[in-house]
Amino acid sequence: MTNITDSATARAHSNIAFVKYWGNRDQSLRLPANASVSMNLADLHTTTTVAWNNELRADRLTINGAVANETARTRVARHLDVLRARLDTDRFARVNSRNNFPMGTGIASSASAFAALTTAACAALNAAISKRELSILSRLGSGSAARSIPSGFVEWRDGESHETSYAESFAPADHWKLVDLIAIVSREHKRIGSSAGHETAASSIFQPARVATAAERISSVKSAILRRDFESFAETVEADSNLMHAVMMTSKPPLFYWAPLSLTIMEGVRRWRQDENLMVCYTLDAGPNVHCICADGDADAVAARLRDLCGEIEILRSDAGGGAYVLPTD
Amino acid sequence: MTNITDSATARAHSNIAFVKYWGNRDQSLRLPANASVSMNLADLHTTTTVAWNNELRADRLTINGAVANETARTRVARHLDVLRARLDTDRFARVNSRNNFPMGTGIASSASAFAALTTAACAALNAAISKRELSILSRLGSGSAARSIPSGFVEWRDGESHETSYAESFAPADHWKLVDLIAIVSREHKRIGSSAGHETAASSIFQPARVATAAERISSVKSAILRRDFESFAETVEADSNLMHAVMMTSKPPLFYWAPLSLTIMEGVRRWRQDENLMVCYTLDAGPNVHCICADGDADAVAARLRDLCGEIEILRSDAGGGAYVLPTD
Repeated sequence: MTNITDSATARAHSNIAFVKYWGNRDQSLRLPANASVSMNLADLHTTTTVAWNNELRADRLTINGAVANETARTRVARHLDVLRARLDTDRFARVNSRNNFPMGTGIASSASAFAALTTAACAALNAAISKRELSILSRLGSGSAARSIPSGFVEWRDGESHETSYAESFAPADHWKLVDLIAIVSREHKRIGSSAGHETAASSIFQPARVATAAERISSVKSAILRRDFESFAETVEADSNLMHAVMMTSKPPLFYWAPLSLTIMEGVRRWRQDENLMVCYTLDAGPNVHCICADGDADAVAARLRDLCGEIEILRSDAGGGAYVLPTD
Repeated sequence: MTNITDSATARAHSNIAFVKYWGNRDQSLRLPANASVSMNLADLHTTTTVAWNNELRADRLTINGAVANETARTRVARHLDVLRARLDTDRFARVNSRNNFPMGTGIASSASAFAALTTAACAALNAAISKRELSILSRLGSGSAARSIPSGFVEWRDGESHETSYAESFAPADHWKLVDLIAIVSREHKRIGSSAGHETAASSIFQPARVATAAERISSVKSAILRRDFESFAETVEADSNLMHAVMMTSKPPLFYWAPLSLTIMEGVRRWRQDENLMVCYTLDAGPNVHCICADGDADAVAARLRDLCGEIEILRSDAGGGAYVLPTD
């Protein structure tokens, strides 16, 4: 048998949601309970090479140069099963994935990872797959990966079916110079990962009201972004983060992702905006790290205040970023 | 004109709610959005003397021996207007009120204060007022004061009208030896008092679901208390506290009463219960102080862990207590 290898390398960015994804209508298809809005993060990305090979007996996975654990390999292999069916191949793949952001900082890598994996896997076989379908396919690996396919400011439509739940850009990355300063409150791994967390969302008596009002917040935050209206943007972004964490804390069992220092930073951010007119607001995902979203002119001032407030805190910084793309072959 | 003075002294205890009161159906009558359940606190009380006097031109008020500020005097005078109408008198009153617990610890004194005031004011005129009506009248001064009239473990019925919204005891104080250890996280005065907070409750999209499910929690927590089932009690008490704070944090504007240290203690309490089998759970009112409700056999162990966790923290301790009563004349 001749060794046939088809490979490609793709890069996708992490993204931060302004209207959050929490809970699925359909768990296996990862059809979200509500639509969400996010911004890609230019400076946090995953670069993944997929090499389809007819002599492999199983999928192989390395992350940052090391052989991945079985949990990660299984999750990737399952996603490759989906892609094999779509791409009409029975070959296994060698997958080498690298994050440019420090691992174990509690910054989710699954969005950028599954977007890069999907993009590279399809490109390796020169398959003619639209951006829309790449977003749909990425969603099956990790819900928020759907949002890392298109560029800049993105809406992921909840849709009515597998085919209609995908993300699209509504403004390019350079539309509004926002910066995400991520205060690394804890490097600990989440006790309860997002995937398990999504399953508990329905156990909160508050989830229906959060879901029912998501469309209003989507509309507000998109409009605020399009008008570059920071005040309105900040109000909706913080409210939406609070709503998601309120659902988490009232789930059965309750999920508390905020650390004491998260609360200190959230209070600081509100004070800097209200008392010092700095353009900054906060949002937190399923973890204690605080994303401080700033107008780029105020980012240095906010970073200085974060250091004053927290001492030696690690801060990751990112501008708004583009969509997933295939890297030229060496 | 002869100087006619009729006076009496009454004492009422503070109480801690296990199913919380937050938001009113009728703001001026303080008809609560939902029923609540509480325990009186034997060791935190207010003692108030009311002297009706026909020569006074206005109501006078001292708190802990000092002339009260105008805000407090006005609130008391308004409540005395209600009592004057009910008691058919046009005399003004000299009111001297004393709390045995430190002022400015963020421990609400309005429940014990308005229960003691109402009881003393009625007793001074030898009025035949039932306990039920004392609870109703106290409610008009401060909602939770309705719960400080009856003894021990108390339910305040939401009722359908002014006449049907009152508190009643469902178990005496000695039914179950529970202790409240109040960790004083902050001595600061609340930025937003409970009365103003109640008015914001309806602005949270989560308040309807909290209110709609309150009857279930009332039923669970009463049943757990009657069976002395700590595990079930703890689950409902913490869930209800989380639900109320989730409503607060998602109100417009959002109200954050938790301090970073509150979060640390809440996490500690869950850990001590789950990992060390200590019978302790937390509940927080409209402030950062954490009420750690313990089985009395575990109270010393919990207090020791609170000190280990927080260093030099002030802790108030109280057993379950009785209802409001008139003190014998000297």
